[in-house]
Amino acid sequence: MEEKHEALVKELQERLSREQVTVNETALEQHGGDESYHSPNLPVCVAYPKTTEDVQQIVYMAKKYGTPVIPYGRGTSLEGHVIPHGGSITVDFALMDQILEVRENDFLVKVQPGVTRSQLNKELKKYGMFFTVDPGADATLGGMAATNASGTTSVKYGVMRDQVRDLEVVTADGAIIHTGSEAEKSSSGYHLNGLFVGSEGTLGCFTELTLRVYGIPESIMAARVSFSSVADAVDGVVSILQSGIEIARVELVDEPSMQQVNKHMETNYKESPTLFLEFHGNEAGLKQDVEFMKAIMEEHACVSIEFEHDTAGRTQLWEARHNLAYAYVHGFPGKKLMVTDVCLPISGLAGAVAHAREELNRLELTGGIVGHVGDGNFHVLLMMDLNDPEEMRKAAELNENIVRYALARGGTCTGEHGVGIGKQKYQQEEHGPALLVMKKIKQALDPHGLMNPNKILTADTGDESNEAARTY
Amino acid sequence: MEEKHEALVKELQERLSREQVTVNETALEQHGGDESYHSPNLPVCVAYPKTTEDVQQIVYMAKKYGTPVIPYGRGTSLEGHVIPHGGSITVDFALMDQILEVRENDFLVKVQPGVTRSQLNKELKKYGMFFTVDPGADATLGGMAATNASGTTSVKYGVMRDQVRDLEVVTADGAIIHTGSEAEKSSSGYHLNGLFVGSEGTLGCFTELTLRVYGIPESIMAARVSFSSVADAVDGVVSILQSGIEIARVELVDEPSMQQVNKHMETNYKESPTLFLEFHGNEAGLKQDVEFMKAIMEEHACVSIEFEHDTAGRTQLWEARHNLAYAYVHGFPGKKLMVTDVCLPISGLAGAVAHAREELNRLELTGGIVGHVGDGNFHVLLMMDLNDPEEMRKAAELNENIVRYALARGGTCTGEHGVGIGKQKYQQEEHGPALLVMKKIKQALDPHGLMNPNKILTADTGDESNEAARTY
Repeated sequence: MEEKHEALVKELQERLSREQVTVNETALEQHGGDESYHSPNLPVCVAYPKTTEDVQQIVYMAKKYGTPVIPYGRGTSLEGHVIPHGGSITVDFALMDQILEVRENDFLVKVQPGVTRSQLNKELKKYGMFFTVDPGADATLGGMAATNASGTTSVKYGVMRDQVRDLEVVTADGAIIHTGSEAEKSSSGYHLNGLFVGSEGTLGCFTELTLRVYGIPESIMAARVSFSSVADAVDGVVSILQSGIEIARVELVDEPSMQQVNKHMETNYKESPTLFLEFHGNEAGLKQDVEFMKAIMEEHACVSIEFEHDTAGRTQLWEARHNLAYAYVHGFPGKKLMVTDVCLPISGLAGAVAHAREELNRLELTGGIVGHVGDGNFHVLLMMDLNDPEEMRKAAELNENIVRYALARGGTCTGEHGVGIGKQKYQQEEHGPALLVMKKIKQALDPHGLMNPNKILTADTGDESNEAARTY
Repeated sequence: MEEKHEALVKELQERLSREQVTVNETALEQHGGDESYHSPNLPVCVAYPKTTEDVQQIVYMAKKYGTPVIPYGRGTSLEGHVIPHGGSITVDFALMDQILEVRENDFLVKVQPGVTRSQLNKELKKYGMFFTVDPGADATLGGMAATNASGTTSVKYGVMRDQVRDLEVVTADGAIIHTGSEAEKSSSGYHLNGLFVGSEGTLGCFTELTLRVYGIPESIMAARVSFSSVADAVDGVVSILQSGIEIARVELVDEPSMQQVNKHMETNYKESPTLFLEFHGNEAGLKQDVEFMKAIMEEHACVSIEFEHDTAGRTQLWEARHNLAYAYVHGFPGKKLMVTDVCLPISGLAGAVAHAREELNRLELTGGIVGHVGDGNFHVLLMMDLNDPEEMRKAAELNENIVRYALARGGTCTGEHGVGIGKQKYQQEEHGPALLVMKKIKQALDPHGLMNPNKILTADTGDESNEAARTY
């Protein structure tokens, strides 16, 4: 270890405690990578803060030694967010995992960043409430805020950014700020909530979150609807959305993915393109919605509709969907996961999904298509052999062609996984001159590049000549 | 006129056209103030851009002559947003009032910033759709985005920020950027949409907006529920929210305000504290919700419930609410309007409204209390004689006490009207060290202070010593 790093670790251990800072090789390896195909890289040390003040001390040390800080939740990133760039301190929030407050009358909770979504939902159930955002992984809420995660319910309840009323953040200069308030809405000052959610650790470390929660609806109805083609399924969703029926969740799972579901979950679902649907409301309203939904699905030549009337059946259905990425991982031992993540206006969705399937066929790759089709977001799940350069090349080509297809149609390169390392190369194309605005913000708030450097924005921050300002 | 300003106007007229830039005294006066009690101040000239490129030329000229730019919609601000600070170019978007595109399948529209909400809704009606945000005034959509406006429907559909998918913005250096995309969600790059919405012209001029729109619901039911006290009415709302019934709109109108409504609208509504309510859904669901709502209201000792079954009755009900500020203005000729605008967690609402009434009584001021109580936001409407210093002092004291009450309980000094000039003095107290982050962003994106200077943030931008960073 470099002399500078030895001194850093020693001082960190003095300021926190010996047990809270480790250079154990296994710990470093556990924190060097994520769940994706991105190449790992070891941090200098892993620090486990217990308080906001611990995080502040870590940031002070980062500044003193010029060693960057990488916030780490559960390492479930799919785009390399937690992979250190050069020598870095990884800040693991495992010891900051307390649910601090549940204020049912205000529909809000306060949590530490290391709380996972399943942990929060277990607690909220006691109050008849739930937290809406559900990415597949049981990620931490801090991590979910950092990437603006979403999931199956965002079509009704919105994405992570919509749930955040306030973040406590330790910024690059060690200040402790609050980005919002406890009020449900505000027009006061710049909307820092919106800016910090999705900033992927590049503007500071989140140390507390105030989140919006919802009452569990009176009635819930889930269904699986099978089609003979993916196109019919997607057209069906678009028709439901246009009919005014409020969908709470809608997921598309294609035929190969249904096979993986059955294999991994030991279910016996029909192996054809399927929509997983859920509706929330009161009993009478739901009954009317479901009848209308059935009529629309039949118009779109659905093959079968099966309802899940009880909680157990519903739970199994959504677990099947949530475990799909793991089903692929377990189904292809030795391979690594690449997941595409574009989102585009809903009218372009059917074409985009068809294009993705054509590309899979053309490149002779094996992969499944799934997605949160209610908001125009879908994924291709691909298992890659990292030792097969030709397969790697093809996978990269697939990802790139899917992104360019979406960008050409008003879409985005990432609907919910974030930029991390994997989507940096599309930032200029997607954001154009707005990228310079982002770089100026990063430069202003983190002038020494200490907060998760080389994520979202590339390292050449802030020194571009500004073409727009060249003449007047 | 100063020589510098003469040269500026001349060059602006050359770059746009003679008719698009005026120094006519009446025009200057029309653009020097807003609808509030804030003291007006005349701009140097008023420019009427027709295109984004016109706005870019204006910003280039602003930079060349060091003369700031003030974007102007309809002048319906209540906090002095459009009042020039020193010699400025007011940019009136009246000629940029085109609805550019309605994409019903994608639930989005593209509009120029000068389009008003009523103009948009008139067009959307043809498609069976509507735009949800409805502040009282028929403001422009550009202005509504600039202040993150909301209104009666935000309890269900969210505020202005929730509707903005993309803004085209001319920034301080004359660059034309897009802050988002056409996709419904994204995790790509920093969330500039969120930052620019509510930035009140201090980060750039909006030249095009891409907005989320909704289908008109199958069934709508509106009701007026009268109570013998404001406290009962507020408690009633909180109970409905907690019951899980999805309210689409809910407004509290107190007794003095109901009197103004009847006087101004020639209605014959009961003159007691009243909730105006609306529910959206399918027929069966709505019927169940309304029955449940009635039961809850009766538990809270409501005096009467009257339903509006047809469109005409509903329209009259909401017009009554929307025209309330004008009812006060017309009811007190010669006086000026001051409107408080705090928002706080819903559990604090009943106490805050009671406190506001006590303060009105203590200070012997005449005013009405109204508000979007579903999200914890309420207003005191006060008419002030600007020539009566004692009344002015008392009104300022009322506003201040209401703000401090809210801030002490996790609330915000402005729920929807914005900071402008009027709420600047509370920014430090509300945001603490986060205010420095806002100032750094302003400094990075508008280093010469050309974009609506001295709004939101005070002029002493960016040069504070940073206490947090002082030691490590």
